[in-house]
Amino acid sequence: MTDWHGSGMSVMEMSHRGKEFMGIYAQAVADLRELLAIPANYKVLFMQGGAIGENAIVPMNMLRGRSGADYICTGEWSKKSIREAGKYCQVNVAASSAAENFTRIPPRSSWQLDPQAAYVHICANETIGGVEYHYTPDTGEVTLIADMSSNLLSRPIEVSKYGLIYGGAQKNIGPAGLTIVIVRDDLIGKALPITPSAFDYQQQAENDSMYNTPPSYAIYIAGLVFQWLKRQGGLRAMEAHNRNKAAVLYNYLDSTSFYANRVAPADRSLMNVPFKLHNEALDAEFLKGAQALNMVQLKGHRSVGGMRASIYNAMPLAGVVALVDYMREFARRHG
Amino acid sequence: MTDWHGSGMSVMEMSHRGKEFMGIYAQAVADLRELLAIPANYKVLFMQGGAIGENAIVPMNMLRGRSGADYICTGEWSKKSIREAGKYCQVNVAASSAAENFTRIPPRSSWQLDPQAAYVHICANETIGGVEYHYTPDTGEVTLIADMSSNLLSRPIEVSKYGLIYGGAQKNIGPAGLTIVIVRDDLIGKALPITPSAFDYQQQAENDSMYNTPPSYAIYIAGLVFQWLKRQGGLRAMEAHNRNKAAVLYNYLDSTSFYANRVAPADRSLMNVPFKLHNEALDAEFLKGAQALNMVQLKGHRSVGGMRASIYNAMPLAGVVALVDYMREFARRHG
Repeated sequence: MTDWHGSGMSVMEMSHRGKEFMGIYAQAVADLRELLAIPANYKVLFMQGGAIGENAIVPMNMLRGRSGADYICTGEWSKKSIREAGKYCQVNVAASSAAENFTRIPPRSSWQLDPQAAYVHICANETIGGVEYHYTPDTGEVTLIADMSSNLLSRPIEVSKYGLIYGGAQKNIGPAGLTIVIVRDDLIGKALPITPSAFDYQQQAENDSMYNTPPSYAIYIAGLVFQWLKRQGGLRAMEAHNRNKAAVLYNYLDSTSFYANRVAPADRSLMNVPFKLHNEALDAEFLKGAQALNMVQLKGHRSVGGMRASIYNAMPLAGVVALVDYMREFARRHG
Repeated sequence: MTDWHGSGMSVMEMSHRGKEFMGIYAQAVADLRELLAIPANYKVLFMQGGAIGENAIVPMNMLRGRSGADYICTGEWSKKSIREAGKYCQVNVAASSAAENFTRIPPRSSWQLDPQAAYVHICANETIGGVEYHYTPDTGEVTLIADMSSNLLSRPIEVSKYGLIYGGAQKNIGPAGLTIVIVRDDLIGKALPITPSAFDYQQQAENDSMYNTPPSYAIYIAGLVFQWLKRQGGLRAMEAHNRNKAAVLYNYLDSTSFYANRVAPADRSLMNVPFKLHNEALDAEFLKGAQALNMVQLKGHRSVGGMRASIYNAMPLAGVVALVDYMREFARRHG
C-alpha cells in the first residue's frame, strides 16, 4: 500500500511515466490479454468515464463515416446506450424485448439488422433485469460491439467475434474510475472530428493509454485482480464457479412459489439474479433480516423494485448458499 | 483500507449509492467548499478524464450559444487546451508569450479580448515552463475559466472571480482519475447537443456527480487530503509553506551562474521550478547524484530538457533545503 516493492512510494504517488508504473501497466495489459486470449490485432485501452461515457465515445469513434448504427434493446442499460447514441447517429433499434418487460434476449432470428449500419451494439448483461447473452450473436459482416461492464472476466469469450468490447471496471475487475476497451485495430483512426482527444481510441492506442494521465491506482488494483484470476485457474475456472453459484440460486427459485424470477431460463444472468417475493408487503422485513446476517445490497433497482442478488466473481459459493438458506427459512416462517 | 469505520468493507467495495459512500462524498464536497470558501451559487463536480478531457468538455459546456472563445497561451498546457478547443469553436488567442519562449505571463494590458467571446481561458500554472498567475486577471464581463490542475489548493483563490475552475486531481489533491470542476450555476445547462451525458455539467450537477459511477476511491482519498489540509491550517498555511519552499530554491538560483531559471520573477511558479545547468554535459551526472540521495523525478520535461523541481503541497521544506544543499555541493565540485 505505502511502499511498492521497496520503491519507498505508494503506487498512488508514482509518476505514470516512471519505470515502476510503466512496469505495472505493461503487466496488467499482458495479464488481461492472457486471461481473455486477446488476439494480437486488438488494442487494449485503459480509459476513464465508465460505460456511460463510452455510450457516447463508442459512436464518436466507431461510426467510421457511416450514418447509422443498430442497437439491440434488452433493458435499462441498452436504453441508456440507445438514447446517447442518438446524439451522434441514426439509431436503428433492430430488436427489443420491451414488450416482454425485458425478460429475455430477443431471438437472433428476429433482429432487423441494417447492412449499412456501422455496427450492432448489445449489452452483454443487463444488471437490473438480470438477462445475459449466453452465446455470441452472429452478425455477419456488421461489426459487433458489446458493453460487457457487468460480465467481462466472468467467463471466457471469443474476442475475435467482436469489433469492440468495453466495460466499466467496477463489477468484476477493479475500482470505479477505470474503463476497459478492447478494439480491433483496423476499426480505429476514423473518429468524428468532435471526438475529445482524451477519448479518441487512436490517440490513446498510440500513447499506451497515456495521452492523458491514466487512473493509475485503479489500473494497479485491476492488475492485482488479473493475477488473482490467473491463480484461480483463469476464466474457465471462474465460469464454473459462477455457474455453480447461479445454479444454487435459480434452482431454489424454481422450486418455490414464495419467490419468483421471471427471466426466460436460457437468458438468465449468471451475475445478477433479480427476484420478487410473492407478497411485496414482506420486502422490508426480508431486507432487514438479511442485513442482520450481513447480507447487504439485496434491494432491487429502484426502477423495478423487489430484490436482486449480485453474485460477481468475488462472491463465494458459501455466500449464495447462505442467501438461499435464509430465503428458505424466511419462506418457511411466512409461508 | 480494508474495513472502513467498522463497515466490514473497503471504500473500494462500497456501492456508490450506499449511505457509507454518500457520507464520504458529502463530507469531501463540504470540506472542499470550506477550504476554497466556494460561494453557494457554485457547483462542485467530481468527474473523470483529467484536464485533457476537460479541454474538450469545457467548450462543449461553456460556449452557451456563442461561436468563439478567448485563450491566453502561456506554454505547453495552454497550447493543448487551444488545439482541443478548436474542434468546437473559433479560438482567439488573445495573448501569447510564445515569442518570449513562455518565460512570463503576457501582461493583462496586452490581451486582445473579444467582447463576444463565450469565455477567456487561462492555465493558472504551467508545469513545464514554470510560470504561474499570481493574481486573478480582470476580464470584465467575459467569463474567466482557469485550468488549475497543478495549483488548486496550493493557496487561497477568489472563486467568485471565475466562472469555472477545473483540474485533474493528481498534483495537490489526490490520485489520478479524479477531475474537480467548480462552476457558477448560471453558466450550466446550455451544453452543445453533442456533449456526452457523462460530461454534461448540468446532468452531473443534478445527480450529485453520480450520473455515472464516480471514481469513488479517488474521491475518498481526496477527502482525506482535504481533512489533512484543514489540519495544516487551510490554504493560508499552505500558501506560506509553498512560498517558503519556493523562496529557498529561487533565492539560490538567483545567487549562482551555475544554474539558471529564466522565468520573469513576478510570474515564477510556486509549484514547478525548472532550471538548467550552465553546462548541459553535466545533466546526467547531476541526476545520478540526486537519485543516490533519493531525490527523484528531477529531469525536466522532454520538450524543454534541463531539470525541474516539482514542489507541490506534499513536498516538505526540508526536501527543498536538501535539494539546494545538493545543488550547491554539485556546483562547488564542478564549478
